[in-house]
Formats: sequence, structure tokens, C-alpha cells
Amino acid sequence: MDAVEYTPTLDQLVYTFGGAAPVMTVQPGTVLKLWSEDAFNHALTSVDDLSSEKVDLRFVNPQTGPFYVAGAEPGDTLAIHIVDLTPARSWGASATIPFFGGLTSTDRTALLQEPLPDTTWIYHVDTARQTVGFQARHTDFEIALPLEPMLGTIGVAPPGGEVRSSLVPERFGGNMDSPEVKAGTTVYLGVNVEGALFSIGDGHYRQGEGEACGTAVEGAMNSTIIVELIKGGAPAWPRLESDSHWMAVGSSRPMEDSWRIGQVEMVRWFEELFGLHQMDAYQLLTQTALAPIANAVDANYSVVVKAAKKLFPRVHAFDGLHDELRRRSTNL
Amino acid sequence: MDAVEYTPTLDQLVYTFGGAAPVMTVQPGTVLKLWSEDAFNHALTSVDDLSSEKVDLRFVNPQTGPFYVAGAEPGDTLAIHIVDLTPARSWGASATIPFFGGLTSTDRTALLQEPLPDTTWIYHVDTARQTVGFQARHTDFEIALPLEPMLGTIGVAPPGGEVRSSLVPERFGGNMDSPEVKAGTTVYLGVNVEGALFSIGDGHYRQGEGEACGTAVEGAMNSTIIVELIKGGAPAWPRLESDSHWMAVGSSRPMEDSWRIGQVEMVRWFEELFGLHQMDAYQLLTQTALAPIANAVDANYSVVVKAAKKLFPRVHAFDGLHDELRRRSTNL
Amino acid sequence: MDAVEYTPTLDQLVYTFGGAAPVMTVQPGTVLKLWSEDAFNHALTSVDDLSSEKVDLRFVNPQTGPFYVAGAEPGDTLAIHIVDLTPARSWGASATIPFFGGLTSTDRTALLQEPLPDTTWIYHVDTARQTVGFQARHTDFEIALPLEPMLGTIGVAPPGGEVRSSLVPERFGGNMDSPEVKAGTTVYLGVNVEGALFSIGDGHYRQGEGEACGTAVEGAMNSTIIVELIKGGAPAWPRLESDSHWMAVGSSRPMEDSWRIGQVEMVRWFEELFGLHQMDAYQLLTQTALAPIANAVDANYSVVVKAAKKLFPRVHAFDGLHDELRRRSTNL
Amino acid sequence: MDAVEYTPTLDQLVYTFGGAAPVMTVQPGTVLKLWSEDAFNHALTSVDDLSSEKVDLRFVNPQTGPFYVAGAEPGDTLAIHIVDLTPARSWGASATIPFFGGLTSTDRTALLQEPLPDTTWIYHVDTARQTVGFQARHTDFEIALPLEPMLGTIGVAPPGGEVRSSLVPERFGGNMDSPEVKAGTTVYLGVNVEGALFSIGDGHYRQGEGEACGTAVEGAMNSTIIVELIKGGAPAWPRLESDSHWMAVGSSRPMEDSWRIGQVEMVRWFEELFGLHQMDAYQLLTQTALAPIANAVDANYSVVVKAAKKLFPRVHAFDGLHDELRRRSTNL
Repeated sequence: MDAVEYTPTLDQLVYTFGGAAPVMTVQPGTVLKLWSEDAFNHALTSVDDLSSEKVDLRFVNPQTGPFYVAGAEPGDTLAIHIVDLTPARSWGASATIPFFGGLTSTDRTALLQEPLPDTTWIYHVDTARQTVGFQARHTDFEIALPLEPMLGTIGVAPPGGEVRSSLVPERFGGNMDSPEVKAGTTVYLGVNVEGALFSIGDGHYRQGEGEACGTAVEGAMNSTIIVELIKGGAPAWPRLESDSHWMAVGSSRPMEDSWRIGQVEMVRWFEELFGLHQMDAYQLLTQTALAPIANAVDANYSVVVKAAKKLFPRVHAFDGLHDELRRRSTNL
Repeated sequence: MDAVEYTPTLDQLVYTFGGAAPVMTVQPGTVLKLWSEDAFNHALTSVDDLSSEKVDLRFVNPQTGPFYVAGAEPGDTLAIHIVDLTPARSWGASATIPFFGGLTSTDRTALLQEPLPDTTWIYHVDTARQTVGFQARHTDFEIALPLEPMLGTIGVAPPGGEVRSSLVPERFGGNMDSPEVKAGTTVYLGVNVEGALFSIGDGHYRQGEGEACGTAVEGAMNSTIIVELIKGGAPAWPRLESDSHWMAVGSSRPMEDSWRIGQVEMVRWFEELFGLHQMDAYQLLTQTALAPIANAVDANYSVVVKAAKKLFPRVHAFDGLHDELRRRSTNL
Repeated sequence: MDAVEYTPTLDQLVYTFGGAAPVMTVQPGTVLKLWSEDAFNHALTSVDDLSSEKVDLRFVNPQTGPFYVAGAEPGDTLAIHIVDLTPARSWGASATIPFFGGLTSTDRTALLQEPLPDTTWIYHVDTARQTVGFQARHTDFEIALPLEPMLGTIGVAPPGGEVRSSLVPERFGGNMDSPEVKAGTTVYLGVNVEGALFSIGDGHYRQGEGEACGTAVEGAMNSTIIVELIKGGAPAWPRLESDSHWMAVGSSRPMEDSWRIGQVEMVRWFEELFGLHQMDAYQLLTQTALAPIANAVDANYSVVVKAAKKLFPRVHAFDGLHDELRRRSTNL
Repeated sequence: MDAVEYTPTLDQLVYTFGGAAPVMTVQPGTVLKLWSEDAFNHALTSVDDLSSEKVDLRFVNPQTGPFYVAGAEPGDTLAIHIVDLTPARSWGASATIPFFGGLTSTDRTALLQEPLPDTTWIYHVDTARQTVGFQARHTDFEIALPLEPMLGTIGVAPPGGEVRSSLVPERFGGNMDSPEVKAGTTVYLGVNVEGALFSIGDGHYRQGEGEACGTAVEGAMNSTIIVELIKGGAPAWPRLESDSHWMAVGSSRPMEDSWRIGQVEMVRWFEELFGLHQMDAYQLLTQTALAPIANAVDANYSVVVKAAKKLFPRVHAFDGLHDELRRRSTNL
């Protein structure tokens, strides 16, 4: 099957999960080559562009999509395999937006202190060396950091008729801001509405865990993905699979609830994968799970709970779909 | 300097940070070879030993110590370098204690539901293969997991005359339950009282991040450590250093506060290490920090924020003490 | 002006804030007499009706509305004065829904324990004595409690194109579940979309603070309200006014964030009402504010921060609109 | 029995629960007349005294005590009835301490913003009118507020050999900062160590719920209390009783956990008082409990859950001890 390419025009960008008409219908198995705008809508192009003047937090993380997946029904599982992520621009931007981020008061952690300085950083992409360049704004410190492209947002329409901002990570995926959503990873999302209505966006050229200041190295992205559909089997919360790990992502507040969600989802998965009793799955994961924070800054906090495949007997989640998608992706 | 060996008798075990008389005075530079009892006080020796019958949560995590460090004064920095951790028994134990752990209601997350089943697992140590064996209690699933010894507790006496249970992780260290506290790591703790009064315990033969069920593979441990003292320079919260990473540990509730503490401590450290402005340190760590949860089950939740040295220019924290301790440890 | 009456048919019920077409346009100043279905959609009519069998949490809190308020624009303030709330049935229902409520694990505080028993209670309304009758399900304990009608939900459409479940309390009002939303209270809500699109529902015949088990004495309600519009002046979060108190409601997670939001909103209000410096408003409210929890069970937790008018000089919020609405309501 | 008077000298003040030798032994039934220093150790006597210069947060809330109660053993219940609280000075002080309080970042909610201004307010006591006077620092706004004396701290020694700062509210009572701890209230605390070792302090001339800025109208206090001992029956968390209410106080983080603790404690109490099944007690309290926040600023947040006696059949908690103490207090 040939790849389907799609680059949204400015007026095709959407800022929600749910609530938007699909831009096209895709058949399961389709390879999509998608372009996505950066989280700031291209508003920050130099260090002199201040987010307080140019960014409206109601309209960030523009989404490419949504796509209607033929045959997808509530209760099904949408599998999105990320084949490749390549920066679509030669630079990315990051910024400390007033009253947004992890080490500042916010509209939720509402305090009386003055905001932190509104500051913008521009990172240049060195394609040859596969790096992005950090330049301090207050001293002459410079450093090249490895390019590690990932997608901040990937999600489907929520259930119950809800429409959520693309700033929100939730049960439907969305703005999870996890570095695990990178090339080579398969994302499994429960389908809530006919056609699933998935979209992607918020490309990051790299990001630390937690996304402390609220924004990664934000950049337009060229994404190649394969879309697959599994009838039934919808996980309660997003599951991820790479060659090396099984993962689940919980997104809520406070952060211990995000962790609890991810950990319970992994207990359920281990019960399925290995035929384990709940208490044995709980115990086994206690001694083996990793638990990196994904974001500590969004409308919900996201925590990834992950287990390294190499520690366990060889089993196939979702009938081996991830391995199959990896094979297909190498033939593209 | 010859190593000083110390194995506490049963009545020398203490269950607090602060509040106990030192077992000995050690000079900075001393190598200590310490034996520590397991977290359960050796109460769970078979799967038929139930924690509800044999474990009193007021007296777990028995400490080896406290040690009075000659010359240590409030405001100083105690550096404890972990040279080696070796299981002192051929088996370890884990258990789901009623109303204790991460996926159950507790005395804090107080709910009305019935407790989870009180269950004990015994892990056998295979010294040759360097593994511990997990055996499911409800099916015949078995698996060997890599032995990865670490210390659940390492801490000093708190300030202000407080005495805290060895179940508590805090500003003074304590029950952080981080897998990073392993051989090759240097732990920096601010000194609060004359002599610092540090102790260690709660050896884990291995543990996943989060320590989900509340207990790791708990086992008696032989620890070789080097104790050093830095005059002044006390970090606000525990800092860790390995050959590969700089780290800080925040311990509080809710979990986002633990993360905030660790992240702010790393911002402060990066300001010192690289002469960065606060906002540049915040930005740089946003794109580079890792943020694994250490425990989601203790009196406080602990989060590690860590930065990989290889990404940054070569600098020396605490005047290069970690490298010096690594050199010394190879000559033991 | 005559009162406008509206009783929705079953297919006119909506379950979201935003996302539904208005049922009618109302002019500012209109008196509305509205009937609302109970939170369970009339599904629990005897103690033998179990919520696990009859209630779908995606479709609870059916809303009466939304109403398009002529002239309302983003940034305006919608004022809804509650003239009268009268039970529309002779009985109300309450239930412990599995994995829903404050003293049980939930989909957010995700744990591994078994659910609490699915139980339903029916309360009979004694109109003469103005009571509702509690009958224990497990013993013969019976008690009559004062009838204290209130509305669990009152809200407008969210900003940014979002559509939220009527289970959600937020900046736009919604499912705040505060006993303060009763006859005699004026609710001020910031307008986010043209026409405001407000709705009400989730009548409670009475409720304790916190709504601990997740459901109040839920009942169909006849509500008489007056709708007014203030151009501009939108508060950041819902404000309430009664003859005795000024109030603000914060809704978020964790609960301290809900309190922070409500407290900051009151600081802002006191700066306006009394021309106070921020620090003086902070201090004055520290010594005078009340802070009852509204709900500890919804998608967000709600906390009311309130100040008793009798303690302060006589001032008029929103140009004395509340007093004016009280006068009008006595003439109905 | 004659009242025993005790006024500590400066060097008799203690700053912890546990860890201090008792100042005297008192027999159950003793009436104590106690003087307590203000929370700031008398350091803030004018608006020019800044807390950053004069207050050390490790040594605030000086305690009067501890008192050894003859016959008190672990598992017993200490009942302290507050007969009278009278200001011991003609003025009280409040202050915004840098990085301390509810609407500022703190050492726990660690952020990068600048602190709020360090400001002190002095309140004059008008004994005749029974008011304290608030004077704005930035405008000429002045107001007289009702004097409503209460004790911020009342507690016993913790279990397990712990010693806790008098800034901490916990299972043992301590710095709960609840306006309910006033004349006419009986406080029931579980005894953890022989003699109970209770102390009081942190008198407030008045305080709003939440104690938003971190400090109430702090003042030296003359307290008259009656000490009683109930063998056995220790509540898990502090219970309070007044003529009008039964109450329980939960203190933890996040705040929803404080509420859960208080609500569960009330469920347990209602099971005892009325012979109710757990589910019926849960339901009944859902419709009747009040839930005011006590403090949102301390090492733990405190929430009071309370039930109005007038709604329920007449029953006697702790064999009617509160009524008996009220009778005794009127004869003093």
C-alpha cells in the first residue's frame, strides 16, 4: 500500500480531541506521512518573540487530523506505529510561559507570587550531527544535545461526547508528553467513537522527563506512521510497546494517581500476558517496573510505567502486532 | 586506612533517624563494612509467614548505626560512597502488608474497602548467576531476575530535634527507596546535628521504580562504604552522584511536590556547576533531565531527578570528590 | 416580566457543558421556571435498583438547558439568581456506585481492592415537615433530616471549544456540588462563548459537605431562577453571593489546588471590594475566611472559600446586583 | 480539686511533640491553668519586626508542657476539655513569612519564583468589645474583628519513638490549627506513650479556616483546661466534641487524604455511636457531615469532618464524658 501524505493548511489545524470533522478516512494498514506544526503555531521564531505576546494557551498544540479509521468502533483498539519522526524545520523553540510550567505557580496551583520571566530559547538543528543547540540567554554557555524526536500529542476522540483541548493528556491519550512516543514505538488506544478520530501533533526535537518548564524543543515534524485496528480489546488507558518495553501511561492529578493508573494498567496487562494472578502480577511488577514521569506540567500529569521485555519470557501482546508493524516499517 | 567492621546485635538495631546514641565515632575517610538486617527484622522466612502476624510497622527498616562522624557540624555535607553491596543471605522476602503499599488504601489514603490479601513471596539468591528467583504464589510461573543490590535507607539525623521513623524519606535522606543508591554511587547529605549521626539499612536485592507493593526483595546486606566530610556546602535535599549521572531526590506529598523539590535542587546544582542563570538552568534541565519515581508507597513519596554527565561539559561537583572516592574504592 | 417555564423531554436532556444546541434564547432579566431530572436519570426508584446495573457514568447529571442568553459575549459575567428550589418528586435516591465516591478507589485513585457493596438508599420527602427520611439498609435505624434543596450543577459552556461532561466542576462552574447553590444565592460565571449557554441540573434534596459517597439525596427539582447579564467583569472562577456571604469556588486536583484557586479568587475580589493591596487582602482573609469542602468525589474536587459580610464594611459587589435580584425575587 | 497553674520560663519552652521531659505529673481530673507564649516566641512586636530576620521556623509554636498524665498507657484515650481561653497580651501578631503559607511556593511546593513580601501585622485586643483590630499596611483600611480565641496546637507524644516539630499536625494531634479547638470543646487523643505527654500552645486570637497566609492572629494565651483519662478506646485520629458537634480531624497530604482520614474516622465513630453498618454510616454522613478545612499551610494539611448533634438521636460518646466535663467546668 502506498503512503498517504497529508499536510494541513493553517485553517485545517484543530486544537481539540473530539469535536472536529475528520480530514480523511484511512483504512487499517495505511501508512501516513504527516506534517505537523509546532506547539506554538510557529509564533516563536526568535528569542525576541515572547510567549505572553504571541501565544494563546487555548490554541496551542495544533493537531494534524483527525483521521477517521474505517471500521473502528467503540471498544476496539487503535494501534499507531511510529515509523519515523524527522524535524521539518532547521530550528525548534522553547519558552517559559508566564504561570505555565512545573516550577511556577499556575492557574491550578494558584499563588500570589509574580511570574517567572517570560523567556524564549531557539535551538538550531544540526542534521549532520543529529543535534540541537542550546544557547543560554544570560551567559555564553552553549551545548549541542542529541536530537531525539518524539510526539507530545497522540490521541483519539474522548467518550461521552466530550471535547478536550490538545493540552490535555487523558485516558484517550492526548498531550502525554512522553519521550517514549518516538520512532519504533506502537501506541495502543481504546476507541471511544466510530472512526476513532485520531490526531497527532506537538512534535518535540527533544525533551527531558517531566518537561519541567512546560515546553520542550518544540518543532514542526514530519511523521511516518502505520495505522492498524484491532477489533475489541480496548485497554482502559494508553499502552505502548517498543522492541524493548511494554508500557502504560496514566494521566491525572495528583501525580500519585497518574502513577497508580499506569501501574494498575500494567498489572492488568501482565495478568493477560503471563496468565498471572493479580497479586503475583502486582508483586512481579513491584520488582521490575520502571516509572519515569512524562510530564509534570499539563492539565493532567502523566507517568509512564514500563517493563523491560528482556527480563520476561517471550510473549506476544495483541497477537504480535508490534513485531509485525516493525517488519512492515523496515520495508517502507 | 583499614576498614572498620560493624555488625549490630539485635538490641543495637534502631528504627529512627535521630534519637539514638551513636554506636561509634568514625573519622572522615573511614571505610566501613556494615551488616544490616532486612526490613522485616527477619520475621518473614517462608511464604507461610504473614506480615499481619509478624510485622509491626512501627519497627521495620532496622538501621545499622548511627555513626558519629568526627568534625561534622550543621551546614556541612556528609558524603557516603557506596563501594559494594552484597547480599548477606541466600534469600530475600517481599510481602503485601494489609493497608500498606501503592495499589491499596492505606492509613493516609483512608478508604472503606477490604484489604488486599496478605501474601509473602520468598526469592532465592543464585550467587553464581547473580539472580533472584521469583515464584508466583498462585500459578507455577517462575522467573530469574538480575540481582541488583541497593539500600532503601540512608540518612542522617533530622534538624530541630526531630526523630523520624526509618520508614520516612525526607530532606535528611532516610527511606528514599531509590535503586540509584547502589554500588558506585556517592550520596551527599546535609548535616543537621553534630556528628551527622548517619545510618543505613533496608537492603534490597532488587526493586522496581515505585516499589509498588510497598516492599522490595528485602534482604540482609553486607555494605562497604567510604565516609567523607565536606565542610559547609550542605545541599537542601539529598544529592547523588554516579560515574554517569548527577541526581537529586525530593520526598514529600503529593508526588508532584516531590518532583518539584528534586527539580529545583537540580536547578540549583546546575547553577553552581555551570555558572548558569536560574532560567537557563531551568531550560537546560527541561530538555535533559530524567525523572524516575523512587517510591510511591512510603510516608513521603520520593522522586529522583537526574542528568546524564555525558551530555554536558566536564565539571567537578564538590571538588571532584566522587571521582576521588571511586579511585579509592578500586584500591580496597 | 412573566416567568418562562421549561420542562425538557427525555430526548432534550444533555450531559455536557458545551456541545449542545440551545433549547431557547432568554433575555437578561428573565425569570425561568425549570424542571430537572435527577442525577440518575430516574433509574434508581427502589433500594433494589443497583447503580451497577442501571447507571452509566457517562450519562448522569442530565442538564436542563442549555439556554442562550441574548447579548452574552466572552468576558461578560452571567448572574444566575436562585429564587426557589422545590423537590419535584416525593422521594430522592442515593447510591454507592462501584469505584465511584470519596472513600473508595476510583478510576483515578486506581487500586487493586474489591469495590464496596453496590447499595441504594431511598429517601422519602415529607413536605409538611420539610424533611427527607433516611432508612438504614442493614439495621432498623431511621431518621428524618431537614430538606435543604440545592443544585449540584450549574454552569456555562467552556472556552476553547471544549465540551465537558456534566460530572465535571471547573472554571465554568458545572458539577461543583456545593450546598451553597441554594435558594437566595446568586451565582456569577464568566462567559466563554456567545450566549453563555448555561444549564442546570443534579438537584439535591440535601447533601453533606464533601458528598462523601459520591451521590447526594438525588431528586428531580423545580427551580425558579432569574438570569442577568453583566457586561464585562468576568471572574476567573465562579463567585457566589448570598445575603450573608461572598464566596468563590475552586475545582481542581489535588484538593489543595482547589482551595488555592478559591482563596486567590477571594483575594482578588477583596482587592476590588475594599481597594485593598494584595498582601492586605491576603492577611484579612487569612483571619476571616471559611473554607468548606464542596465535593471530594468528582472529576475535580471543589472547595468553597467564603467571607461573612457582617464582619466587613457594607460594599456592593457587581454594583449591588445581588440585592436587586433579591428584591425582584420577593415580588415574584 | 484546685486548679494547678503553670507558666513556663523561656528555657522551659519546647518545640516538639515527644522528646522532652515532662514538666510535671497531673492526675486525671486535674484543672490546669496554663500560660503559653505566642507562635513567634514574642519576636514580632511591631510591624517593623520582619519574620525573615526574627523567626526561625525550626523553633516556633513553643509548647507549654509536656505533662505526664498519671496512669495513661498506650491505647488509652486522653480527653482534654477546654474550659476557657483568654488572651494573655493586649495585642497579637501575624506575618507572611517568606516561602511559608498557602498562597506562596514553599520548601515543599518548591518553585523558582521570588517570595512574597515579608510583612507583619499587629492586631490590638479590645477587651471591652471583645475584638481584635486589623489595620491594612498599604492603605488606611481598618476593621475590628470578633475575638475568637483558639489553640493552634494540642497534642501528645507520637508512637514509635518519633519526635515531631510543633509545626506538624498528625495522628497525635499537634498543629491542627482548627478554630474548633476553643472553649467548650473536648479533644480526644489516642495515647502512644506512658503518661501521654501532652502539651498545648500556638494560641490564636482568631483565625480563618485554612489559615491562608500561614499565621493566625498569634498571641500569648491563658488556657484553663480539664484533663481526663479514659482507659482504652484510643481513636485512630483526633476526635473533638462540643455541645453541638462530633468531629474528627485528618492531617496529611494531599488534602484529599486529610479529608479521607477525617471522614473514615467519622464513619467509625458513627458505627459505634449508632450501631450502624459501615455502609449506612457512610451514607448517613454523606448527607449530613460538614467539612471545613482547618489548615492548608502546615507540614500536613488538616481537615475537620463534623456532624451536628441536633440532627441525630441523643447518644453519649465516651460514656458522656463531654457533658460531665461541661458540668464540671461551669463550677470552676
